[in-house]
Amino acid sequence: MSRYLDHKLETEERVTDLLGQMTLVEKCGQLNQRLYGWQAFERVGNSFDVTPKFEEEVAKFGGIGALYGLFRADPWSGMNQENGVSRANSARVANQLQKYVIENSRLGIPMLFSEEVPHGHQALDSESYPVNLARGASFNTTLQREIAEAIATEISDKGVHLALASALDILRDPRWGRAEECFSEDPFLAAEFTKAITTGFQASGRVAVILKHFAAQGEPVGGHNSGPVSIGMRELREIFLPPMVAAADGGALGVMAAYNEIDGVPCHANGALLTGILREELGFEGIVMADGCALDRLLAMNPDVRKAGAMALMAGVDLSLWDEIFPNLAAAVVSGDLDEEVLDVAVSRILRLKFQLGLFENPYVSETVPERAESWRALNLQAARESICLLENREVLPLENAQHIAVIGPNADALYNQLGDYTAPQNLADGMTILQGIKQIAPENTIISYEKGCDIREKVAGGVERASELAKSADVIILVLGGSSARNFDMEFLNNGAVSSKGPNMDAGENVDLADLALPAVQLEIFQALKQLGKPVVVILVQGRPNAIPEISEQADALLTTWYPGAQGGIAVAETLFGIVNPSGKLPVSIPRSSGQLPVYYNQKAGEYKEDYFDERGAALYPFGYGLSYSDFAYKGIQTTHQSRTVAELESGEKFRFAVTVQNRSNRAGSEVVQLYVHDQEASITRRKKELKAFQKVEIGAKETIEVPLEIGLAELQIWSIQNRWELEAGTVRIFVGGSSVTAIETVIDITNGVR
Amino acid sequence: MSRYLDHKLETEERVTDLLGQMTLVEKCGQLNQRLYGWQAFERVGNSFDVTPKFEEEVAKFGGIGALYGLFRADPWSGMNQENGVSRANSARVANQLQKYVIENSRLGIPMLFSEEVPHGHQALDSESYPVNLARGASFNTTLQREIAEAIATEISDKGVHLALASALDILRDPRWGRAEECFSEDPFLAAEFTKAITTGFQASGRVAVILKHFAAQGEPVGGHNSGPVSIGMRELREIFLPPMVAAADGGALGVMAAYNEIDGVPCHANGALLTGILREELGFEGIVMADGCALDRLLAMNPDVRKAGAMALMAGVDLSLWDEIFPNLAAAVVSGDLDEEVLDVAVSRILRLKFQLGLFENPYVSETVPERAESWRALNLQAARESICLLENREVLPLENAQHIAVIGPNADALYNQLGDYTAPQNLADGMTILQGIKQIAPENTIISYEKGCDIREKVAGGVERASELAKSADVIILVLGGSSARNFDMEFLNNGAVSSKGPNMDAGENVDLADLALPAVQLEIFQALKQLGKPVVVILVQGRPNAIPEISEQADALLTTWYPGAQGGIAVAETLFGIVNPSGKLPVSIPRSSGQLPVYYNQKAGEYKEDYFDERGAALYPFGYGLSYSDFAYKGIQTTHQSRTVAELESGEKFRFAVTVQNRSNRAGSEVVQLYVHDQEASITRRKKELKAFQKVEIGAKETIEVPLEIGLAELQIWSIQNRWELEAGTVRIFVGGSSVTAIETVIDITNGVR
Repeated sequence: MSRYLDHKLETEERVTDLLGQMTLVEKCGQLNQRLYGWQAFERVGNSFDVTPKFEEEVAKFGGIGALYGLFRADPWSGMNQENGVSRANSARVANQLQKYVIENSRLGIPMLFSEEVPHGHQALDSESYPVNLARGASFNTTLQREIAEAIATEISDKGVHLALASALDILRDPRWGRAEECFSEDPFLAAEFTKAITTGFQASGRVAVILKHFAAQGEPVGGHNSGPVSIGMRELREIFLPPMVAAADGGALGVMAAYNEIDGVPCHANGALLTGILREELGFEGIVMADGCALDRLLAMNPDVRKAGAMALMAGVDLSLWDEIFPNLAAAVVSGDLDEEVLDVAVSRILRLKFQLGLFENPYVSETVPERAESWRALNLQAARESICLLENREVLPLENAQHIAVIGPNADALYNQLGDYTAPQNLADGMTILQGIKQIAPENTIISYEKGCDIREKVAGGVERASELAKSADVIILVLGGSSARNFDMEFLNNGAVSSKGPNMDAGENVDLADLALPAVQLEIFQALKQLGKPVVVILVQGRPNAIPEISEQADALLTTWYPGAQGGIAVAETLFGIVNPSGKLPVSIPRSSGQLPVYYNQKAGEYKEDYFDERGAALYPFGYGLSYSDFAYKGIQTTHQSRTVAELESGEKFRFAVTVQNRSNRAGSEVVQLYVHDQEASITRRKKELKAFQKVEIGAKETIEVPLEIGLAELQIWSIQNRWELEAGTVRIFVGGSSVTAIETVIDITNGVR
Repeated sequence: MSRYLDHKLETEERVTDLLGQMTLVEKCGQLNQRLYGWQAFERVGNSFDVTPKFEEEVAKFGGIGALYGLFRADPWSGMNQENGVSRANSARVANQLQKYVIENSRLGIPMLFSEEVPHGHQALDSESYPVNLARGASFNTTLQREIAEAIATEISDKGVHLALASALDILRDPRWGRAEECFSEDPFLAAEFTKAITTGFQASGRVAVILKHFAAQGEPVGGHNSGPVSIGMRELREIFLPPMVAAADGGALGVMAAYNEIDGVPCHANGALLTGILREELGFEGIVMADGCALDRLLAMNPDVRKAGAMALMAGVDLSLWDEIFPNLAAAVVSGDLDEEVLDVAVSRILRLKFQLGLFENPYVSETVPERAESWRALNLQAARESICLLENREVLPLENAQHIAVIGPNADALYNQLGDYTAPQNLADGMTILQGIKQIAPENTIISYEKGCDIREKVAGGVERASELAKSADVIILVLGGSSARNFDMEFLNNGAVSSKGPNMDAGENVDLADLALPAVQLEIFQALKQLGKPVVVILVQGRPNAIPEISEQADALLTTWYPGAQGGIAVAETLFGIVNPSGKLPVSIPRSSGQLPVYYNQKAGEYKEDYFDERGAALYPFGYGLSYSDFAYKGIQTTHQSRTVAELESGEKFRFAVTVQNRSNRAGSEVVQLYVHDQEASITRRKKELKAFQKVEIGAKETIEVPLEIGLAELQIWSIQNRWELEAGTVRIFVGGSSVTAIETVIDITNGVR
């Protein structure tokens, strides 16, 4: 028996032994993830054949590093209930392919199965949770961790090892179609969430995360998908690195490089980023996966495939994805473009991960895949509830005594529109639209009538007239508007899965960027028509990005956004409408007044510049952190244990500790997210107006007053100084506390050099 | 006699001698430009008193480094024909103040007079030229140099030494209110212009430029005036440094630091920029002036005035402007916050400039100020002619046989709206509005009727109706729309002169940023009303920034923009309408379809990203370099002397030389701007889709075919490489040639390492 098969040996010893036995081609094969998973099998009735394409790939490279998307089902892959892998079949297919690799390669190295899990597993019969942007609104990291654990259980039961999870993108330009994949515009909130999902996904030891995307993809010039990013190195560190720092701290085992360039250097060729910052500075020890076909794009800079591959490998990319570049790495070594020692480092990382995840000991999983757990659905529903942000409430909600409710709008009864991009074909019975939720939750004998009225971006013949007619006899109108990332099976796609044709009902998602963030004219038309009836109009937005909604903000009688709330979103919305759930979501992103006003993220640099435009205010329509409750919270005071701390104290781990007094003035219990922001008044560089540095979500009983503890220390107070290093600089720092980024109360603290 | 007064000695010797005699306070005084010039005098009838404020400043510092804006007249200064300094009085007042300083200070050091000359001298009775953005459209560097020489003559005759000229700002976000002050969105074009005006202003040896602003002010986040800039160092070098490189090459004697921060570091505290790049790398040897009150803004980072002053001085700022920071430099030396040797370096620079300009030998000027030269007006008119960009012409222009012309619109008869920001009160008889121009140029017996119709952003009661009525009997409608940077005397201003209140007719200029670039609704309304008449509608835009004009582009029968064409703009427009002038302007900036589409500059990075939005094209409405002529030019071919050059050849000064064959297919002579763009296909960093690297404006006779020589070499082909240095990298470069950035023909060249 080869030593690498001896599980009693140290991992490093096994890696070294195995690597030493590998040919150049076999090494190259371990960095290969060229195949689309759905091309590895063909379903025949209820059994599966291994395809010649798969067999050829195994033969060519003496194994396969990883297989992407074996279970992916969606319009791009063309996989659905008819031809794809059901939950029940999944472990069996995984085992079958794994067995083929092990038995048909010289060294029998198992392959990694990688799958998309942006908001649940993008596979048939799988739980579909709210998208990241919705979950960001919960400000509830515990819940995120639990969701990640649930997803990890779900996929590892199917045989999956690598969970491709959106986490690192920061939403700086909401024109970008992938806004929904971001937790927030705020780096601190996103970092807390990234840490939560990293530890959640990896808790069992059977799954490694691949966190998407490193780095800075959320601020492409013009909001163009995978467009260039022109920011400086300080902006990179302040805004885009914090989630990665948190992930590295949390032991993340993988990241995916981002498509974009930063200031002229594509991330996939950026050694300063992938090696300098990621490994040397942050101590990351996992693998770096390429984004789909991203390595092919390097040919624009270096037309020789061998040189392009060497460029990426030397920068720090370990594992390919669909590209034709890394399959040529062996040739690059032969031609002298690549040092085999560099190749060995990357191969070692892949092998190490396989040992860490126990693939050699347990390459197969039980073929009896458990049913979806009830607890997952409960988590999913809770996530949807906490995602809802109530923005306006002009004494309409919660609904009481409504005899007849008119439910109208393109997102009222459209399950796919609740789910976001990267969604598999659903079993409709597993989900609940808003209309269905209202029907289920409304008091008995309530009349509920429905009319779509219009599509997301197109008229429906007679729709407005029918909606108006129907609403005439209603007591209240529930108008469900917004956007959609729902793909259709007749669309066209690029070789990386991004949308390349238009669907009338898909105005968000990957490659679907918007110039104008206003709601489509057809939706505003129906809103205006219904407003004219003089009835209360409750607008619910189902959306993957913040739309610009000045008219609705002003005129709606109540307004809430659910983002894309997932398959249980309909229940959560209905519970909120009827007061069974008290809304507690806070905006994870500032809502703009118009595209012309961008950017409107709250944490802009302080300075004496012109904030308002001649024709529009500079401030957001609704600021980051904002969200109403049926309760009424008041911030009463802030105490601190230390008004002053020395640099040395903070560097040794001491903190500033605060107690914030919050009163619930209402007769209704509710949850509040207590937020703490800082503004450094003395620094070697300019600082932002406010920066979120602590938060806590608390439940406060009716008429109750509580003290909420918050703390900040070195990590929250140090800056990337004029010396281009993390430094804690002495000076005064303003501390702001409240229920949104437009805070209620403040105090100051001093960081001193200890010598007065 | 002190040695420093001996003009036979070398300048350095005189500087050293003088510096050695100065007290700390006197040194501090030489870096002081705190006073507003109009506070230095009081006009009593036709004579002038020196004010106590001025006397106190001289006494306090034993002299004054520079006096800003002695002749400035405008709503902010409150100076006008009643209380300001006329042309005839100007030299006399300058001499009077200079004499006071020399006679009332121990060392008798003359002061520098600094004045604004963004588009001519911002003073009474002075020539007002087209703004930079308009002149940029000319692509005529010779003309720019001549204009700069004319302005230099005009101001130095009045006693002025420092010409504050906009030049370095690159127009990357047209929401920015100071768009008009930029020559272009393109760094190469802006650099050629900056070099032309630098050599022009400084040709006589009596004037030094202060080029505004260093650096990167044209890309503030959100388009907010003086807002933060978050770009990286490569973007800075590629886009914002070229004008400064050209200026340094051209011997520029001064620059003004920019208000903005770059990636967290305010330019005024940015040693890497003001010393590292500017002096050490570019070899600049002139002075760095602060922007108005900009040093006060450093207090936000460093609340101690002494430390803030030291920070700026150490970074490389030499001369203050209105701030209360540099007047405390002496205190900073005393407190130990500043090393006197650092102070001495800055003082030496100011003194050196005074010696260089001959102030010690000739502190006074002739008090008989010459009348404005006829040649200036001719230059001004020619500049206006060449600024006009014809964008659409649906067989309407030039006008022929029009018996009755209706001239309509808020910019048709508004001289101030043609002049841009930084404009002094005008003698109306010196200028020509578009209505006046048409009346003067139209064939005899043409009926010309006029109605304003609306203000720039507000309705005029009955205006649309009157305009429609009047236009009914016309053969052609000339509709003059756009924006305005005209200040009013009842406005309010910040302490740096920027506008802080709104005027209904001022929607551009400093601190007047726009969120929505569309033409105001009142203007679109009048356009639609007039279009309904079924008559040809010629739209003329008078504007300081590119507005988004999709409807007008589509529906106008002819469309041209004059930008802010200056006091002679009315003649130039009329000559163009009637075919006396054949338009030749090319867009110095891409015209967007909407704000949501920003940025649309042509030189975006190449890459496989999503260029179109779901709801709008990504491309500009009209691209950079575009402009029609009454002639019809065709690009027939491109030849090159060398298809391939080695790195060594290019580094030794060899060039790629091209001959472009252009045919005028029409019966009308005209001027064409032949443009050459490059795209580097192999590089260590990503390159832009196209980059302008050579152009030539040529006149081509009717039916004539000519060959236009163009060349590029090391300067145009080197890149700021992955190694962060200028390098000429081997590889293939595509060469595009045509009459706009959407080019007509192309070829390739190779840069080789010389070893095949």
